[in-house]
Amino acid sequence: MTRLHVRPATHDDLPAIVAMLADDIKGAGREDARLPLDPGYAAAFEAIVADPKMLLAVAELGGRVVGTMQLAVLPGLSRKGASRGYIEAVRIAREHRGQGLGTELIDWAVAWCRAAGCGMVQLTTQRDRIDAHRFYERLGWERSHIGYKLHLQGIA
Amino acid sequence: MTRLHVRPATHDDLPAIVAMLADDIKGAGREDARLPLDPGYAAAFEAIVADPKMLLAVAELGGRVVGTMQLAVLPGLSRKGASRGYIEAVRIAREHRGQGLGTELIDWAVAWCRAAGCGMVQLTTQRDRIDAHRFYERLGWERSHIGYKLHLQGIA
Repeated sequence: MTRLHVRPATHDDLPAIVAMLADDIKGAGREDARLPLDPGYAAAFEAIVADPKMLLAVAELGGRVVGTMQLAVLPGLSRKGASRGYIEAVRIAREHRGQGLGTELIDWAVAWCRAAGCGMVQLTTQRDRIDAHRFYERLGWERSHIGYKLHLQGIA
Repeated sequence: MTRLHVRPATHDDLPAIVAMLADDIKGAGREDARLPLDPGYAAAFEAIVADPKMLLAVAELGGRVVGTMQLAVLPGLSRKGASRGYIEAVRIAREHRGQGLGTELIDWAVAWCRAAGCGMVQLTTQRDRIDAHRFYERLGWERSHIGYKLHLQGIA
């Protein structure tokens, strides 16, 4: 039995989504949940909504938004042209953690990727998010890759 | 001075690209470079070309295709709506490795992501591709994430 109602986010969900992104040990320093929101959030929202291969989702519990994630389906040549699903920016509101809602959210994401024809789904989590590593491994995900990033601001 | 000429791939480049994907310890078991190519490759190529946020590139040296990579720019809410660049399926043909061409290819990818307005670029490499880890770390990439994957075929 699922408790979460997962649906595409609307513009009105942005404050709740950004609040969840900001209420995080990693997000605290790089997000800004103060209203009115930084216009960058609405611009990104419009770009996501305009792309049929992408989905910004929210998860409701009892009519209140308690989770979010971003999904994408990308075509690729590898594996004989298999599409890949990507899961990014997964959050469950702090007061609702530890109740299995994250599992419901990821189950929904995997079903969405399967329905979109993906042969595999991938995601990355930061190296020091040990709880997240345990979570995905418990769900059967394979720890297969090393993730690298390069910040572009300030690089000549 | 750059030696590589990087350009968008055309349909005619597919056999050379798939040959590079297949000539790899990981790709050998999951790709099929025999002609005529599996139709999945052309279908994926058409999907990539149709998406203005994606680029399948080839790199030529002296008029011959010796490298490939796939790039994507994805909008996202995180970091105040910063777009992210993704680099996937990077290959330099076996007989041209060890000559610095991979560095040129990645430099080109980073410049493309920067021109597309990305605040950061990310990529994953398999955990046991030790040479690739050294390569990206030498170029200044930060080993920041753990990458997980879930294969969907055969999962009930």
